[in-house]
Amino acid sequence: MSDNQDQKMMGLAYQQAYKSYLEGGVPVGAVMVKDGEVISAGHNRRVQDGDPTAHGEIDCLRRAGRQSSYNGVTLYTTLSPCMMCSGAILQFGVTRVVIGENRNFRGNIEFLRSHGVQVDLLEDKKCTELMDNFIKEKPGLWDEDIAGRTDV
Amino acid sequence: MSDNQDQKMMGLAYQQAYKSYLEGGVPVGAVMVKDGEVISAGHNRRVQDGDPTAHGEIDCLRRAGRQSSYNGVTLYTTLSPCMMCSGAILQFGVTRVVIGENRNFRGNIEFLRSHGVQVDLLEDKKCTELMDNFIKEKPGLWDEDIAGRTDV
Repeated sequence: MSDNQDQKMMGLAYQQAYKSYLEGGVPVGAVMVKDGEVISAGHNRRVQDGDPTAHGEIDCLRRAGRQSSYNGVTLYTTLSPCMMCSGAILQFGVTRVVIGENRNFRGNIEFLRSHGVQVDLLEDKKCTELMDNFIKEKPGLWDEDIAGRTDV
Repeated sequence: MSDNQDQKMMGLAYQQAYKSYLEGGVPVGAVMVKDGEVISAGHNRRVQDGDPTAHGEIDCLRRAGRQSSYNGVTLYTTLSPCMMCSGAILQFGVTRVVIGENRNFRGNIEFLRSHGVQVDLLEDKKCTELMDNFIKEKPGLWDEDIAGRTDV
């Protein structure tokens, strides 16, 4: 997929993140693309649904419903995936992950790559600024969302 | 927790798994315990809810709702956790995992232990037999649930 397409899809993931931010939630969004088509979009729903497993990537995978295969699927996420979401990416066999930023959460880029996932990091300023603001405004909520664990 | 308590809690996880089996779903169940009290029970809901992320462990974590900490939590699961569920256990900082069986799915016991999780494997015959039967009856559904990946 071209860089322009990646920027466009990350823009959709950002819209999901910003929607969650406006709802008072954790502003992480994700979009799934297969064969150039968006098949799912989601965002963190810890606050909205009281669901600690509903990270942006998990919500997006859930909303895509049952899939026969994730071969050829690209998952766009505004923030580098935590270990739960990285584990889901590996277990499901998602081919490629495009990440908005990893300054606010290092995530598991090398872990994913070492297991054969193609990972691209866009270092997107809008994604970074949104998380910057959220973490400053609601540090307790952010800490809860990753269970205070930045080292796994 | 005593062996008797572990057997009792695994019995509750098995009830969840068997409920899912009767519903035509994937028969994996889980129970969360904190300070000796059951705080959540769940089972795989791929078929029931069309939700590929609803493995037994994820469903159980979801139903427990938001938690300030998973320190001291034991997660009982009838089957050895896949990489998604193992990632969730690590990210949330679940202290201990008790597994019914790992003959039908190896899972990630050493991965969890290497990250400091206390893991106990009961080699429970009822859990093994239930999965044996399910995999014989619905091999395609089982393959879908783990995306055909027994090696991650």
